[in-house]
Amino acid sequence: MNLTELVKSATAASGFTHAAAVEVLSVEPGKVSLRMPRKPELLQFNGFFHGGAIAGLADHTAGAAATTSLPAGRIAVTADLHINFIKPANGSAITAHATTVSAGTTLCVVTVEVTTDAEHGPMVCAIATVMLRSVEAPK
Amino acid sequence: MNLTELVKSATAASGFTHAAAVEVLSVEPGKVSLRMPRKPELLQFNGFFHGGAIAGLADHTAGAAATTSLPAGRIAVTADLHINFIKPANGSAITAHATTVSAGTTLCVVTVEVTTDAEHGPMVCAIATVMLRSVEAPK
Amino acid sequence: MNLTELVKSATAASGFTHAAAVEVLSVEPGKVSLRMPRKPELLQFNGFFHGGAIAGLADHTAGAAATTSLPAGRIAVTADLHINFIKPANGSAITAHATTVSAGTTLCVVTVEVTTDAEHGPMVCAIATVMLRSVEAPK
Amino acid sequence: MNLTELVKSATAASGFTHAAAVEVLSVEPGKVSLRMPRKPELLQFNGFFHGGAIAGLADHTAGAAATTSLPAGRIAVTADLHINFIKPANGSAITAHATTVSAGTTLCVVTVEVTTDAEHGPMVCAIATVMLRSVEAPK
Repeated sequence: MNLTELVKSATAASGFTHAAAVEVLSVEPGKVSLRMPRKPELLQFNGFFHGGAIAGLADHTAGAAATTSLPAGRIAVTADLHINFIKPANGSAITAHATTVSAGTTLCVVTVEVTTDAEHGPMVCAIATVMLRSVEAPK
Repeated sequence: MNLTELVKSATAASGFTHAAAVEVLSVEPGKVSLRMPRKPELLQFNGFFHGGAIAGLADHTAGAAATTSLPAGRIAVTADLHINFIKPANGSAITAHATTVSAGTTLCVVTVEVTTDAEHGPMVCAIATVMLRSVEAPK
Repeated sequence: MNLTELVKSATAASGFTHAAAVEVLSVEPGKVSLRMPRKPELLQFNGFFHGGAIAGLADHTAGAAATTSLPAGRIAVTADLHINFIKPANGSAITAHATTVSAGTTLCVVTVEVTTDAEHGPMVCAIATVMLRSVEAPK
Repeated sequence: MNLTELVKSATAASGFTHAAAVEVLSVEPGKVSLRMPRKPELLQFNGFFHGGAIAGLADHTAGAAATTSLPAGRIAVTADLHINFIKPANGSAITAHATTVSAGTTLCVVTVEVTTDAEHGPMVCAIATVMLRSVEAPK
């Protein structure tokens, strides 16, 4: 299975990203972009994307980017996540762009930029830093 | 509206917490506990609660706790969230217990402990620290 | 060497904590308290303790608490640190109280409360969460 | 006073950055680089830069970058700081490069990359995200 297929398969298989209809935009070693369309169950009471939905997309995208940086047979699972909410996320979709900063034998660090559709192009609505553990992939 | 009604109303009104059927367990000034039952769309591919679902519950509970610490007419909106995932969250529900550490005129800090149902009682699966801004409540 | 001697020795040996005259107040498995007296090189331009000094004390105390939670022959080294500055730290000393939340085979999570001397007793000036890796102790 | 003079003056005035002989490398609106030379009191017991020293440099550089993004008469003070330690910092100096991501009326977000001198050029040893409050500058 190549990297793109691996990320598509993990994204389609997960309850959260499956239910949220998350779309794989691009995958290369250490760089993954995923898109989450607007849906009522992903929003706050005021119509903006909920912090949990944004964090969930950032987390999943970071896991994908880190996994593409690891040797075959290993996957990255999140140890901690720090996210700054910068602007209300009020478009028709949000997109997370994750980049591996470091991938060691036990830990990976990934930064994520989340953008929202805006009238004049994408606008950064959140940034995150995620630390993940490298573990053996389940069979 | 008293504090419990306020939190119940905000939790029922939000797309994310409404869809996830989040239940208000207890509300007092600076202390709120909310429970999220297991549902397929809140899980990872391996059947554990997804990091985004855990972060979303922690975020919402922190917002409720901070808001109960503010003067009437003001609400707390999340500025940043840091979450450590400590154990896989694999029970029939997760519960977030949020406690306001400080509530100033512009910023609040809240700590959250998330537990999961386990055979011998609740087990901590994540801890979070959330910083929130105090803003005027929408009419 | 018992745990208290281990923490005293590591605190006296480190350039930063040695130069800052950090004092070991108490050590038990998973719980360590260290005190840092006010000194000009630890302050901001306004006379409050500098964020770096507070973070440095929190970091060192977290490392000590995590190490006391590990089997003999292993030490904890910081992977990431998140700190919220809550009140200006303006007393004659600051004290960090670190508590191990979890200590696994590869990672530990520790929470830290930092207090400053105030007229009517200690006041929380910062809280931190620190994640550390468990590694073999150098000979 | 122009921006470079402002940052030089704040860096020279602060007990911590003064004692550490921090050098201002470059200042432009929203972008500041500062360098901290190796000194015994900034190190761990193993000779690497101490996490507190790295965090302190990151914090101060973030404050400088955020302040250069604010209107005259306002300064940025740190609300929280999250730092990931990626590689041991073992050169003759570390350098922090801070970039303002957003500067609002109450809050700023700044990212920082810290590099250490290495044989073949600078190497990233830590990354940080800092959130700061905008406050009126003291006279």
